[in-house]
Amino acid sequence: MIRIAVLGAGRIGRIHAGNVAASPNAQLVVVADPVESAAKSLATRLGCEASTDPAGVLERKDIDAVVIGTPTDTHITFMLEAVRRGKAVLCEKPIDLDMEKSLAAANEVERQGGRVMLAFNRRFDPTSQAFRDAIDAGDVGDVRQVIISSRDPGMPPRDYVEHSGGIFRDMVIHDLDMARWLLGEEPVEVMAMASRLIDESLEKLTDFDTVMVQLRTASGKQCHINCCREAVYGYDQRMEVSGSKGMLLQENLRPSTIRRWSKEATDVREPLLNFFLERYEAAYKAELEAFVDALNTNSPLPTSVQDGLKALRLADAALESALSGKAVKV
Amino acid sequence: MIRIAVLGAGRIGRIHAGNVAASPNAQLVVVADPVESAAKSLATRLGCEASTDPAGVLERKDIDAVVIGTPTDTHITFMLEAVRRGKAVLCEKPIDLDMEKSLAAANEVERQGGRVMLAFNRRFDPTSQAFRDAIDAGDVGDVRQVIISSRDPGMPPRDYVEHSGGIFRDMVIHDLDMARWLLGEEPVEVMAMASRLIDESLEKLTDFDTVMVQLRTASGKQCHINCCREAVYGYDQRMEVSGSKGMLLQENLRPSTIRRWSKEATDVREPLLNFFLERYEAAYKAELEAFVDALNTNSPLPTSVQDGLKALRLADAALESALSGKAVKV
Amino acid sequence: MIRIAVLGAGRIGRIHAGNVAASPNAQLVVVADPVESAAKSLATRLGCEASTDPAGVLERKDIDAVVIGTPTDTHITFMLEAVRRGKAVLCEKPIDLDMEKSLAAANEVERQGGRVMLAFNRRFDPTSQAFRDAIDAGDVGDVRQVIISSRDPGMPPRDYVEHSGGIFRDMVIHDLDMARWLLGEEPVEVMAMASRLIDESLEKLTDFDTVMVQLRTASGKQCHINCCREAVYGYDQRMEVSGSKGMLLQENLRPSTIRRWSKEATDVREPLLNFFLERYEAAYKAELEAFVDALNTNSPLPTSVQDGLKALRLADAALESALSGKAVKV
Amino acid sequence: MIRIAVLGAGRIGRIHAGNVAASPNAQLVVVADPVESAAKSLATRLGCEASTDPAGVLERKDIDAVVIGTPTDTHITFMLEAVRRGKAVLCEKPIDLDMEKSLAAANEVERQGGRVMLAFNRRFDPTSQAFRDAIDAGDVGDVRQVIISSRDPGMPPRDYVEHSGGIFRDMVIHDLDMARWLLGEEPVEVMAMASRLIDESLEKLTDFDTVMVQLRTASGKQCHINCCREAVYGYDQRMEVSGSKGMLLQENLRPSTIRRWSKEATDVREPLLNFFLERYEAAYKAELEAFVDALNTNSPLPTSVQDGLKALRLADAALESALSGKAVKV
Repeated sequence: MIRIAVLGAGRIGRIHAGNVAASPNAQLVVVADPVESAAKSLATRLGCEASTDPAGVLERKDIDAVVIGTPTDTHITFMLEAVRRGKAVLCEKPIDLDMEKSLAAANEVERQGGRVMLAFNRRFDPTSQAFRDAIDAGDVGDVRQVIISSRDPGMPPRDYVEHSGGIFRDMVIHDLDMARWLLGEEPVEVMAMASRLIDESLEKLTDFDTVMVQLRTASGKQCHINCCREAVYGYDQRMEVSGSKGMLLQENLRPSTIRRWSKEATDVREPLLNFFLERYEAAYKAELEAFVDALNTNSPLPTSVQDGLKALRLADAALESALSGKAVKV
Repeated sequence: MIRIAVLGAGRIGRIHAGNVAASPNAQLVVVADPVESAAKSLATRLGCEASTDPAGVLERKDIDAVVIGTPTDTHITFMLEAVRRGKAVLCEKPIDLDMEKSLAAANEVERQGGRVMLAFNRRFDPTSQAFRDAIDAGDVGDVRQVIISSRDPGMPPRDYVEHSGGIFRDMVIHDLDMARWLLGEEPVEVMAMASRLIDESLEKLTDFDTVMVQLRTASGKQCHINCCREAVYGYDQRMEVSGSKGMLLQENLRPSTIRRWSKEATDVREPLLNFFLERYEAAYKAELEAFVDALNTNSPLPTSVQDGLKALRLADAALESALSGKAVKV
Repeated sequence: MIRIAVLGAGRIGRIHAGNVAASPNAQLVVVADPVESAAKSLATRLGCEASTDPAGVLERKDIDAVVIGTPTDTHITFMLEAVRRGKAVLCEKPIDLDMEKSLAAANEVERQGGRVMLAFNRRFDPTSQAFRDAIDAGDVGDVRQVIISSRDPGMPPRDYVEHSGGIFRDMVIHDLDMARWLLGEEPVEVMAMASRLIDESLEKLTDFDTVMVQLRTASGKQCHINCCREAVYGYDQRMEVSGSKGMLLQENLRPSTIRRWSKEATDVREPLLNFFLERYEAAYKAELEAFVDALNTNSPLPTSVQDGLKALRLADAALESALSGKAVKV
Repeated sequence: MIRIAVLGAGRIGRIHAGNVAASPNAQLVVVADPVESAAKSLATRLGCEASTDPAGVLERKDIDAVVIGTPTDTHITFMLEAVRRGKAVLCEKPIDLDMEKSLAAANEVERQGGRVMLAFNRRFDPTSQAFRDAIDAGDVGDVRQVIISSRDPGMPPRDYVEHSGGIFRDMVIHDLDMARWLLGEEPVEVMAMASRLIDESLEKLTDFDTVMVQLRTASGKQCHINCCREAVYGYDQRMEVSGSKGMLLQENLRPSTIRRWSKEATDVREPLLNFFLERYEAAYKAELEAFVDALNTNSPLPTSVQDGLKALRLADAALESALSGKAVKV
């Protein structure tokens, strides 16, 4: 039974802590957050210890693994400290907003032989997993074109936007990881376009709200990504892959299969699941389980710090392309 | 924390025992089955006691409630014994294949003030619940017509068919309960047609494999049910309700939202969930939770022995109509 | 080139006349209607002669065939007169509301060797034709169950209802013909339920607005029909057939494949085609073409007076069953 | 009644000639093609004159308008000659493969005040028209992102590919016109990626088989286009537009609404309409009707030579971007 500490009792920390507590293969020992009330209320609900000292928790000998769900600028510090103390790590993305720091951290993890998994939760979404499995099974033959549509239900709070690193590094990065995962080859060229169609004031942050990216691999496979900070019809997450033998589409998920017919509209389906916590609820569970399974069976972790680096490099390249109007080689 | 014993370690008993064990609000104390190996392997897996003496288990003072998943002809005995000993009961359907015995048992439960819930699991299916909620919310206005399509993936084993009481009492009965639940009024007239299109030898059992039933309530609401023992395309469970303001459809559930396009066929969806254990997995969980919740909060149980009686009476009426070619008043 | 007269310049007569005029294989010679303005305006639009004397038109030697779209109670008179004068006839349903008169007319047509086609337009609907073709091609294997849903957008005018012969003879009759066409065997038993859920005053006419019918053939194939005079969501025309090898569904048609996503509802499809003139526009064209083709090639007419008789008999049986609460053998 | 000559009796000429012949508002006078057999068989079928001298036909005084469906390299010659003789022209795209020549021809048409409509048939497709109407009606609010998927069922014959001007000028150009039409603003920037994933030998022609293009307008609206010469699942034509108020999707068309369920696959829809002649059959009819209507009512023609120029300029820019790896301003 892997003994786990969760650092961070905010939105994402609560998700991870709940999944650890519910896992039959792991034990939630402690949740740590400098905000005492957050740590305590979560610990009480889940029946574990609370701590206001995340760094201190890393010193405990009775902890095998750490889930890092703290603010982005603390990821590297906690990750490296945990690695140094021989603990396995499941770390939220991104490693850091800065490419240089991220690279240095990745090197240090490698030097130490650390076991660090980056939390690319979408890879563990059961529907996306079935999608990828179908590609691997050859259902589309040789992959030619991947299309990813990814739109949030609404603009995040201003405060978030100011510290997120921008739409490419906080939002598109998920889709760039999906692109790598589905293409089965590394992209070598990135072209991006970016607009401010919702919030003009993003100009001050050199940020955007509506973007399109296209990627090409060395063998010529292509991927298109479209993202928008606001889709009034809901959290839109679709994927499509076509190849020499056919096409696969992945539609949005909905809470039920009911269809409504009325004077106003016919065959109306249920509303989309509201946002990522709802849409990817099963993915977070499966991600934690995959982490614990890899530790229990001493298998390779399913995602690595390198995956985090590569997604960040693509995000940076997309931003550079959008600003320069040139294709960027990666 | 409600302390629960599960009687029966067969297919349905294992489902119930697993759900009790996973419930945060109940404790699985013991599973009992005369087949020692079945009881032991289940108990070991779920970390509870095993017993080969279901009747003996009912005498235990440390048991608050009993889930009865034993063969149909033992339901009444265990149910009444549990009631006598003051234990709450969740009993699989049907109460009994015989209407007289069922009626007597129901009277006895009532006389004793027993708390017995009949396991009409489909009422707890989240999708069906959302369907019913939409009706209650007035989305179709006044209900006029209900259509229920219910087809099994294939003929059950001969042994099962010989003891099941026939298609009306073992299969259509679920849909008759759905009809009552959705119509919001008791049916007063039943018309049925029954054929042997798959297995002629059912004639020896006065049984059928393909049936249509139509029901009418006092105010004139109508319901059609079609059932077939074999649908080669999978376990088909659809419902439709129309009324003065619109219509609601409930489509089959599938494991994912993927659609496949190939040379042979386009827009192909995932196969249907194989059979009732898969299709109604969430329903069984929710049913157990509803039972435990009602006990914990001392609320009325969501289904009653009367519901079991009424569904059985409709099943008997449908069989009578199919055999006589007359509408049967109920 | 078949030379055709159209009797009746009302709603259905105008459809037929337009199709004759547009046909490359027929010539519209004259439209006849006692209402002079109706006849004249239609004739002017289509570039043919107008007449106010339908009976007189039948005497013309330059007419090969007649399309009868006059009021129901004139069908038999015109049909028999046309047959006597050696003209082929495409006659609107029903032959007559009275079974005895219809039977006598059918006998007379047969005695004279008349060529009379009954206008069961739905059989010529391209989508329904493809549906039937798929059954004939063995896509569902041996047919077991047919489900027909047929709902009108709203109650017809009171005047129409008072003279239509009732819901079974004016509306369900179309679906009964579809049932015969799809089952591939004659029904031998009819069970029906009928309610007044929309208009209580139909009681004075011994008429109903909401009905369910089930049919059985000699070999045990089954068919369910549900009809309602009012579906606020539109003209609902669906069919389903299941059998030993699979199932076929026929969905409603819509004007385009557009789907709308908004804050209020997602994936909303176009509204249904308003009513039978829109939904079956192509069917009326194909029906006229089939009539003309059969005449040009001297082939058997695709539907006969017998088809009209049989559908009427089923409609009468359904009414009898609904009133008596008994299955009716036919 | 507009009197029309059709130049060219090949695949596209036959479509146009058939539509002219069927139009109630135009008269097909003559079809002209140097291949005598082609001209004669078409003329015989449609009941008009045949000619082997397209240029000579332009001299006829009894011709009001000309439809040019001849090989691309003859378009400009016939177009200008027709304009000089005062005849209205419906000309197939492209004007010419060469931008300079096209520009000169456009200037000449303008100088002469010629009435020339470019045959962008997709704009007249009833479904696409409804799609555009919905945008105009404000259903998506301010347009933000347009996605166009456009894949052919299979590689065209080698001979066609060698003279077509390449995938951008013969295939993507249709989608670029759609992009302009749907965005409601001119694109100012083009980024493209192009691969040879099906036929390596296209390298000799500096041509490609699989491409992605993204466009940006001055206000920041974006459009993505993906094209592939081969989709084994059929002729794939989908469009999506999203904006401040919602999203619109346009699905592929199919011959009927039937869905098939079998052991192998459930809910299988009809195959896609095979290729552009089938998919856009109604569009070609509507295009011809729009041309004739504009002439009859002396209204502006719905598309112009300028539309042809602009689409060609975008196609050239996309090719340049794919070859250079840079965004191209237009």
